[in-house]
Amino acid sequence: MRSTPLPDLAAVEAAAARLAGRAIETPLLESPDLDARAGARVLIKAETLQRTGSFKFRGAFNKISQLPRGAEGGVVAFSSGNHAQGVAAAAQMCGLPAAIVMPADAPAIKIANTKGYGAEVIFYDRFGTEDREQLAMRTAAERGAALVKPFDDPDIIAGQGTIGLEIARQSQARDATPAIVLAPCGGGGMIAGCATALTALIPGVAIHAVEPADFDDTVRSLAAHQRLRNPPGRTTICDALMGPTPGELTFAINDRLLAGGLTVTDREVQSAMAYAFRVLKLVIEPGGAVALAAILAGKIDLRGRTTAIVCSGGNVDPTTFAAAIALPEET
Amino acid sequence: MRSTPLPDLAAVEAAAARLAGRAIETPLLESPDLDARAGARVLIKAETLQRTGSFKFRGAFNKISQLPRGAEGGVVAFSSGNHAQGVAAAAQMCGLPAAIVMPADAPAIKIANTKGYGAEVIFYDRFGTEDREQLAMRTAAERGAALVKPFDDPDIIAGQGTIGLEIARQSQARDATPAIVLAPCGGGGMIAGCATALTALIPGVAIHAVEPADFDDTVRSLAAHQRLRNPPGRTTICDALMGPTPGELTFAINDRLLAGGLTVTDREVQSAMAYAFRVLKLVIEPGGAVALAAILAGKIDLRGRTTAIVCSGGNVDPTTFAAAIALPEET
Repeated sequence: MRSTPLPDLAAVEAAAARLAGRAIETPLLESPDLDARAGARVLIKAETLQRTGSFKFRGAFNKISQLPRGAEGGVVAFSSGNHAQGVAAAAQMCGLPAAIVMPADAPAIKIANTKGYGAEVIFYDRFGTEDREQLAMRTAAERGAALVKPFDDPDIIAGQGTIGLEIARQSQARDATPAIVLAPCGGGGMIAGCATALTALIPGVAIHAVEPADFDDTVRSLAAHQRLRNPPGRTTICDALMGPTPGELTFAINDRLLAGGLTVTDREVQSAMAYAFRVLKLVIEPGGAVALAAILAGKIDLRGRTTAIVCSGGNVDPTTFAAAIALPEET
Repeated sequence: MRSTPLPDLAAVEAAAARLAGRAIETPLLESPDLDARAGARVLIKAETLQRTGSFKFRGAFNKISQLPRGAEGGVVAFSSGNHAQGVAAAAQMCGLPAAIVMPADAPAIKIANTKGYGAEVIFYDRFGTEDREQLAMRTAAERGAALVKPFDDPDIIAGQGTIGLEIARQSQARDATPAIVLAPCGGGGMIAGCATALTALIPGVAIHAVEPADFDDTVRSLAAHQRLRNPPGRTTICDALMGPTPGELTFAINDRLLAGGLTVTDREVQSAMAYAFRVLKLVIEPGGAVALAAILAGKIDLRGRTTAIVCSGGNVDPTTFAAAIALPEET
């Protein structure tokens, strides 16, 4: 029995009001080349250009800005990197201390940026026996701090959902109505928030989660209508999308609102990063490029159907980026 | 005696009307990190996101779309790369054949993209005795084609000036008024067009040309109030800004309207490219990054003065980009 109420359109709109002037309203871009490849108008929500380089700031600020008075113990979060930066920046903006539990093998740029926002970083071993969630909870309890979960929280979901609000409004401003929306899916918070807003505003829109082929927990869970886990021991270039299983709240939303899911290989993700470099001139991290990869790899027939995709983050190490853009162009 | 009339604000506005729905209205971005470094609000005109990956499409389309009937001989241009792509794409859109004279050592991505827009590429040796302009003129005469100059043409200048129009309008929409504008300068067409629009719309705005230290012809010419040449045999990472001397028309405008000029070293340009990768998540080519480099290297005191910069293009080879982002971060 789930006791937490799910966020609705009003919750996303309230989050948008809190984020006004704090988060960047990221542009909705278009590329003639991508339109020609897809055979459809493709609207690119460049959330790479968000404060902290990913969408995670939206949910973090929506959550942290609502903490009650007396939250001087600050906040604690666990994250592979983008949530860490989002929480650190939001806490700094709210004048609260932040401690972040991060995997020791997180991209160096994400670790450095998290520290750059004034947060303390506590490392755990991703492949060890230590449970990062328990470590974060113990740290929060010791410090009297609030735990800011990465996705399974109504305020986080509503904050990320402001991306969906902006897609709807920005599309309308250019006389476009997305029939299809593709968004990356890790724990599922961002796509759940977007689906909450978009299905309320655009009747009939088909929203698809995109996951790495070896971390397709949501895709399989959607098909089975129950939360399934990824087998242990797998890895992917998409460090931001390596969660073990869909969230409880996020899956309750996604199972009801999503049209389905798609998967992409790491090689397809690298090709999409290279395409974004070469044609779109955007820096997109692996996990942020999966929706673009799904289009470029032809995983869904878009012909004639206006499509919006979320490019969710751009925090990628130079070596990882250089390796992707050095690969020979596929035809 | 110069017989060609210089473009005015009305010419830039007419160009904007021709470009509506053809060129992309590129976003004016902001970065909290860059604002903090500059001590001022910095508005980033991301012309990297323009059709063909640089601003050059604007001028080329403004020119080519006005060619008289009977222009079936098509167009010929000479260019290190970005003008080539702009002309090729504009000609393709207008249904005209294009032949482009390019240096044999132009970035491979610029050559490939030019061919991708259906243009024929004719190579010349940048360090040889062959004069690219004469080669282009002979080719145009042989084919009955129109020569589309890279910068020293009123229609080209007016087309590039639509960047200035957009900066003025987009700034106003966010309650900002630039006191300072920094823009890259090669032949000077883009900054001349921007200055034409911006000085008419924002009284007192101080516009500075930014050039590579070893190709500072405009900076020195502005100081001397006469057109000076760069010494031969020099090179720079900024392949888009390697012209020998300011244009006749462009310098007539720039000498009258610009506040002055700044120079940046290749190393400062690489640092700016790395910063754009790491913080802004934008792919900027060397020549497109000089204005950003001038801010990051502290070449001008912006404190408290709202500043707009043009990041003019993103067509850079993977190896050049990888080398820039691999450099150690400067503090």
